Parts: sequence; structure tokens; C-alpha cells
Amino acid sequence: MPAICDFTLGNPHEMPLQGVVTAIREWAIPHDKNWFAYKASEPEPQAFIAERLGLELDLAFEPGDIALTAGAFAAIMIAFRLVVDAGDEVIYSEPAWFCYEPMLLAANAVPRKVNLRSPTFDLDLVAVEAAIGPRTRLVIVNTPHNPTGRIYSRASLEALADLLERASARIGHRIFLLSDEPYRQLRFDGHGFTSPAALYPWTLISYSYGKVLLAPGQRLGYLALSPLMPTADRHSLRAVLFSAQMALGWCFPNAVMQYAVPDLDKLSIDQVALTRRRDRFMAALLRAGYSVLVPEGTFYLWSKWTDSDPQRQWNALADRDVFVLPGSVMNSPGYFRISLTASDEMVERALPAFVEVA
Amino acid sequence: MPAICDFTLGNPHEMPLQGVVTAIREWAIPHDKNWFAYKASEPEPQAFIAERLGLELDLAFEPGDIALTAGAFAAIMIAFRLVVDAGDEVIYSEPAWFCYEPMLLAANAVPRKVNLRSPTFDLDLVAVEAAIGPRTRLVIVNTPHNPTGRIYSRASLEALADLLERASARIGHRIFLLSDEPYRQLRFDGHGFTSPAALYPWTLISYSYGKVLLAPGQRLGYLALSPLMPTADRHSLRAVLFSAQMALGWCFPNAVMQYAVPDLDKLSIDQVALTRRRDRFMAALLRAGYSVLVPEGTFYLWSKWTDSDPQRQWNALADRDVFVLPGSVMNSPGYFRISLTASDEMVERALPAFVEVA
Repeated sequence: MPAICDFTLGNPHEMPLQGVVTAIREWAIPHDKNWFAYKASEPEPQAFIAERLGLELDLAFEPGDIALTAGAFAAIMIAFRLVVDAGDEVIYSEPAWFCYEPMLLAANAVPRKVNLRSPTFDLDLVAVEAAIGPRTRLVIVNTPHNPTGRIYSRASLEALADLLERASARIGHRIFLLSDEPYRQLRFDGHGFTSPAALYPWTLISYSYGKVLLAPGQRLGYLALSPLMPTADRHSLRAVLFSAQMALGWCFPNAVMQYAVPDLDKLSIDQVALTRRRDRFMAALLRAGYSVLVPEGTFYLWSKWTDSDPQRQWNALADRDVFVLPGSVMNSPGYFRISLTASDEMVERALPAFVEVA
Repeated sequence: MPAICDFTLGNPHEMPLQGVVTAIREWAIPHDKNWFAYKASEPEPQAFIAERLGLELDLAFEPGDIALTAGAFAAIMIAFRLVVDAGDEVIYSEPAWFCYEPMLLAANAVPRKVNLRSPTFDLDLVAVEAAIGPRTRLVIVNTPHNPTGRIYSRASLEALADLLERASARIGHRIFLLSDEPYRQLRFDGHGFTSPAALYPWTLISYSYGKVLLAPGQRLGYLALSPLMPTADRHSLRAVLFSAQMALGWCFPNAVMQYAVPDLDKLSIDQVALTRRRDRFMAALLRAGYSVLVPEGTFYLWSKWTDSDPQRQWNALADRDVFVLPGSVMNSPGYFRISLTASDEMVERALPAFVEVA
């Protein structure tokens, strides 16, 4: 339906990157008889990512710290398996990606949700600290943050690291941190990025190539252990990576996608176009009376509805063939999320509708 | 190491099927902007497999009965998620694929193992019945059977279906059956095949294209619900397939592999060559004094060591650069498994070693 302007999910609205096509076709040509044999975390992409990520975050990753996964979903699931026992509590901040909760429940963990501090949607460290109890085992941080586009500051993450260090000592066992960073490469206005893995040694990073390539249908990601982690802990986690990935459904990426890692790592969707759409949307929405948070990263725009009946406004947009993600699915009914993976043409077509319903 | 004769795992020892390469390269070319977007179970491969499997098993599958999965591992994990609660017991027969146990433990299920009836390795229905208790929720049947190569007879599976029907009534809840059939297309000597899904309505089928294509590195398989299942049960399982696959790590196959299903479905490794290797091995091993079970399906050969010290014999083979899977990893220390996915040249090179150590 060409008339529909669908801004709900981070799905492509333009043809795929040619480099993704070329890489898959190139690496589908077998070099040896084991080309399509069982693949776990292959040594070449492990080494490539360890070096690449090490340069990016200024951390000395080793190949053994990197588990290749079928997207970030699998990386997150493995992280839960590695550090969370049945009945353990896992803290994360809302609004949040709507899959943490069902994935935690599937892992027999107990989700403990706290709120981000609106209207800036910074981490609320007082709330995190208050949520920590004797069964707390993991805290999830998502930066750059979906849906708000915030990138948490180094100071804020340092304070979180201090808090987790003290709380771990208090409750008598180590609280781990999962830094979910699939949007790490997608940042606006030259914003920097600090990974919690550089500040809190017991950090695991989940990453997906699905965002920066806008190709989430070709599952490729990784879980990385912070090299700051004490050797004993780091090696005991490394030692169970393979068996966890096997037991959770052999959730390694396809052979072809693993071979293609160095080629794919050079590619990105058009970030200039993302910025152009962000700016176009923000100017129009602000003028129409919406409160819009300036996203520092991701490809989302997080905005407040203009009146007190979000359902009515969402329906009014839908009546005009414009669809956004209602904040209600992220426990933030006063807000909505726009995906900037739209085409420019869609943006222009949709803007009058946003003005009309404001 | 070219001197090594490695018969341990079902991995390729010759170059991949050209058809697999062609299909991946062909279907990597995008037809539309959603080519690499998030893919769940896509309607086209669902419909294709429903029809194809329906013809093969003479059962009226509908597209909604088919969940596309990243290989059979994922299909099995989803089956556990669909029907097994934490603490429920799952029965399977040994020797068995060595991943059932860690996967069941990862699903917080309790494995209950019974023995197959040696020396024929038929199902031991008396043992299965005796193992059923108030917490039994699932029985796994693997046919054609890894490692023994047995294909269970219709009569034997009918008796199992009767048994499960009676036991379900007795314990007051439904016992499900998982029919793990990744070797279904790999049968010797014109042997037929009966799926438990045709006999026991509460059957789920797990399948992988990884065996028949000998391409386990390109994860592609499915979970199928028996269309004989009563509508209410069938629809309630269908309704949770997507959320289970999402929560367990978005374990759908890659986009390209889903597009390629109709092309891949036409392909098979060289079954004449498998038969030739089986016959060559069997003749030589029998002459050398080994007891070999004639495999009816799979690409394995299950044989007894000739003396009472299997470890010594395994070491003696290894000293001659010949490696087999010791039965001890499948709780059958008196036996070993040979994978026929070897090259003919490997077989000829290895045969003298088997004779020498007998």
C-alpha cells in the first residue's frame, strides 16, 4: 500500500545496501569443503571483532571474549543464561525495548523495571539503587537508547558503576551489567560514546549488525566480555559460551554471514539522511506544538503527544495513513516513537498529518 | 591435516552442493526494499513446506502449522518451550543425540532416559511406559535414528501412540510427542518412513535441511504441528509460536535461506555414494569381526567394538589417524559411530586400520 506512511519499526523503506548484497554473494562461494559445515564462533570474525571493537572502545579485547551470535536477540539470551539463575532479578529502565520482558520471562528471570527520569530520560540511579535486592543479578543498560535516542554520559555511567560495585559488596554477590549497544554506530551531531564495559569490569556487551546495515533479517551480532573483568570471572564465562549457545539452539550466525564480517563492518546506512529526516521532523513537530527530545543516537525520534488523549491522536494519524509506535507499548502512554528509517518522500507526505492532529 | 580420517561428525568431506551455492547467491539479490527486513516465519516457505510435507507424510498440513527455524536445534528448543514447564519430565531413548540433555536442562526440564533394546535398538515400549510419571510431558522419538540408523516401524509407533494415549488419560494431562526427523530424507534400500505425526495427533515434528544438504552452517529447519491434533490444541500452539521464537532469541532462519527453500528442497547429497560407503564399510567390518547394525537411514554406521576394552581400540584407531565417535558419549561404551559423509578415498585409506585394531 504505497499511501501508507509506516514509521512504527526500524525496518527499511529503501532498497538494501548494495555492499550487503555483494558480501553475501561473494562469501557464498565456497573456498573449501567445510564452507557450510557446522560453525560456532569462527576464529577469524572473533579476531576481527576483538581488534575492531578494541580500537573503538579503547579496550584490549581478545578473540575469546567475542561470541558470534545470530543477532543481538541471541546475544542477550546468552548473557541471561551466563549470569542469571532461575528466580534471579534483572533491572532495566523504562521506556525500554519491548522484548527484554518476554526474553527475561523465557529465561525464568524476574524483571524489575524502574523509570528513566523524564523529560530528559536520563538514568535514574536512585531508582536503580532502590530496586537492588538480594536476588539482583543483572542490570541492563541500553545506550544509545531505544526509544529516546539518549546516549548516557560517562559521568552517569561512572556513577552507575560505583553504585553496582557498592551494591555487589552489600548483597554479597556480583551484579553483572549488560550493555545493549546495537545502535552504537548510529550517533548524531558528532556525539561520543562511552561503553559501560570501559567503566564496570563485569560488563557484557550485546551488539547487532542489523541496525547499522538495516538488515535485521540476516542475523549477525555478538556478545563481548569486558576485558577489564578479573581473569577468573572472564575465563569462567568464556568457558561456558559455547555450551550456552549450543544448548540455547545453536544460535551462532550462518557461515556466510561470519565470513562476511570484515566486509560488512565497513558499511553503514546513510547517516546524513537520518540526520536530515530527524531535523525535518523535529522542526515541523516543534512548530506544531509537540515536545520532541533531540535524539543523540539510534534512528528514532521520541515525542510527546500534544493532548491528553494519546489514543485519539494515534487514531487520527492512522486515519491519515500515518503510523507511529504508541508509547503505551513501552509503558509511556504520553509519548510516541517515529522510526527515521523512512524515506524522505514518506516524511514529506506524513508531515501535514502530524500538524493536523496536533 | 590430509592424513587424518575423521569419521566422528556428520560434517562434509567434499565440496558443497553447487545448488546450495547457486540458491544463496540467487536469493541474495534483493527484489524489494524489505528483502533483509526482520523475517519471522514467512508465508511463502510456510505454504511451500506445508504442501511438500503434506504430500510426503500424507497429512493435511496448513501453512500455520509450520514454524520456520534456524535449524532443528531451534525447532527442538521451541517445542520444549511450547509444551514443557519447568520441572516437567521428558523421556527419550539412549543411545541418543548428545544435545537433547543439555537442551532439556537449559529449558529447566528433567531428562528421563530409557534404553533402546539392543542389539536391534528398537524402541523399548515397556521401558517408556515404566518411565512415565505424573510430571511426564513429552516423549522424544528420533527416526531415522542417530546413531543406530534404525527407522521405527509403523507397528512400533502405533503401539507407542496407544501407550501415550492411555498414559495421558491415566496421569490426567496430555503427553506430547516430539518426532525429531532431520534424517527423514536419508534412507537406504528403499526403506519407507512413517512419521509419528501420522499416528499420534499430539506430535510436533522437528526438521533440518542441514543433513540432506550437508550444510549445517546455514541454519534452516522447521517445527511442524501434526494436522491430526484437535483444533483447540493445534490453534493454541500456533498462537504462541511467534512469541516463543521471539523470546528464545528470534530463532527464525535468515531471510535469504527462507527465500531459497523451494530451490533447496530439490537438492540432496549423493545418496548412492552414502550407500556405496555403507556397503564397503559393512563388508570390511563384518569380515574383520565387528558386529555392525545395518543402517536403514541416516548417514551413520553403528558398530560394536570387537573387544572388551573400547578405549584401547579407539586409541589404536587414533594412533593410525582414524577417528570415530566413541559410543561412550552416547552412554553406549561398547559401540562406536562412523559418519558416512566421508569421501570414498578416506574410507579406503581407513579400512586397513579397522582391520588391524580388530
